[in-house]
Amino acid sequence: MSLKLIEKHSSFDGLQYKYSHYSEVLQCDLTFSIYLPSNKEKKEIPLIWWLSGLTCTDDNFSQKSGFQRLAEKYQVAVIIPDTSPRGENVADDDAYDLGQGAGFYLNATQNPWAKNYKMYTYITDELSGIASTLVPNFSGKESIMGHSMGGHGALVIGMKNAARFKAISAFSPILNPSQVPWGIKAFSSYLGEDKANWKEWDASELIKETGVPPILISQGTADTFYPEQLEETTFLENARKNNQTVNYEKMEGYDHSYFFISTFLEDHFAFHVKQLR
Amino acid sequence: MSLKLIEKHSSFDGLQYKYSHYSEVLQCDLTFSIYLPSNKEKKEIPLIWWLSGLTCTDDNFSQKSGFQRLAEKYQVAVIIPDTSPRGENVADDDAYDLGQGAGFYLNATQNPWAKNYKMYTYITDELSGIASTLVPNFSGKESIMGHSMGGHGALVIGMKNAARFKAISAFSPILNPSQVPWGIKAFSSYLGEDKANWKEWDASELIKETGVPPILISQGTADTFYPEQLEETTFLENARKNNQTVNYEKMEGYDHSYFFISTFLEDHFAFHVKQLR
Repeated sequence: MSLKLIEKHSSFDGLQYKYSHYSEVLQCDLTFSIYLPSNKEKKEIPLIWWLSGLTCTDDNFSQKSGFQRLAEKYQVAVIIPDTSPRGENVADDDAYDLGQGAGFYLNATQNPWAKNYKMYTYITDELSGIASTLVPNFSGKESIMGHSMGGHGALVIGMKNAARFKAISAFSPILNPSQVPWGIKAFSSYLGEDKANWKEWDASELIKETGVPPILISQGTADTFYPEQLEETTFLENARKNNQTVNYEKMEGYDHSYFFISTFLEDHFAFHVKQLR
Repeated sequence: MSLKLIEKHSSFDGLQYKYSHYSEVLQCDLTFSIYLPSNKEKKEIPLIWWLSGLTCTDDNFSQKSGFQRLAEKYQVAVIIPDTSPRGENVADDDAYDLGQGAGFYLNATQNPWAKNYKMYTYITDELSGIASTLVPNFSGKESIMGHSMGGHGALVIGMKNAARFKAISAFSPILNPSQVPWGIKAFSSYLGEDKANWKEWDASELIKETGVPPILISQGTADTFYPEQLEETTFLENARKNNQTVNYEKMEGYDHSYFFISTFLEDHFAFHVKQLR
């Protein structure tokens, strides 16, 4: 493991870092950001993962959400991965919703994607190992949140690792990727046409499992991608059938932007912190 | 006056707008952003002006500072102008610190700049007229803040219009532009070589006048532009000689970025709101 520090900023008494490193899993160089609170009281610090949406890097949440105020207030570390492998030697597509910037937090099986597009293993294994070394006084407790494609990622990674993540939350998540245009396009490319292979990457399927962590979801009613890409009916129906703890909130007049995320981020942090204590 | 609404987002119960319009003063199309708080209690709403730094547009503060939480909390409207005239027919320079994105909030007198570079009159006259029509229940009370080149702008505009602006604050401002590289380059180009014409645009000169509004300044100690571009000695000395109310605070470890601004923005809002009531 060789990390290169590329940015470090004081922020709300804590420190906002940005690193680059070579990922063995993704076989490319990649950046990630991590915020460490001041920990003036020398307590054990939990870790929240933030997964971003289509076209984003780790910078969007770091620069636009205002999360640092909350991470310091609640004394949690926050790690923000990039959204896909990157670089000239990594397969890509001209569209914004496939290839670089659109990794969908899964492990691709199809060419030309299979070589690099392993964001699931990168996050749950390689970057997790790095994160645990970067958080001083790490409590070992983790939770996960995300937005849009990253909301899908948070739900899928959180439910597939239900013993590890104490809470899951999402803003405007892709809840049923097997049935909506963004998901169908990505899954067809990354996983192939056999839809049996899509199920393990679809939150509406995973919510049928037992032992799922508590889930909070916020969806704006003025979101131009809702309901087409962010349809919730199947997910909520399967959650209800299985008595899962899901709080799905609709926010009147809010759209798909970081203006929406920043407005309700404190509610999400409070929800996570309650589970992380 | 013909305004074109180009963005509208719900944010912290209020609304974040972005407009474009043709400026008669600048003789070009320009954008600006304005936030209106919810005003659930139907009170009179004051207006804070935010002036941005080199290379910025109205988007930087709108997207990176998290100010909307504070504007809603304190029930103030906030208007964010662009930093210069824009467009193919507007004079420009390859450098980031001259021409488009670097208007320095003055009225240029030298060619090729004199035709369009009138940011002082644009803000204090034309955009002020527009702003007063956009804030419902406007109290008529205003204050001004800014960052770096925009900190210079806030101080200069605020002190030149001391009866109008109830408070002035700045993050890492250019306090003595006549004596530092950024200012010397800009003033030589926009105002010509006769330094007598620079004085009315230099905060360290204007602070010698009487009736100056209360001033708060925050400067990070890890700012790579400090002290070279942001030197404070002359300004503070002249303020002291004239018994001006200036609170100049150094923040240990903070840099020139929006991570710094967002951390201390609540202190600045509280300072302004006290004067705007």
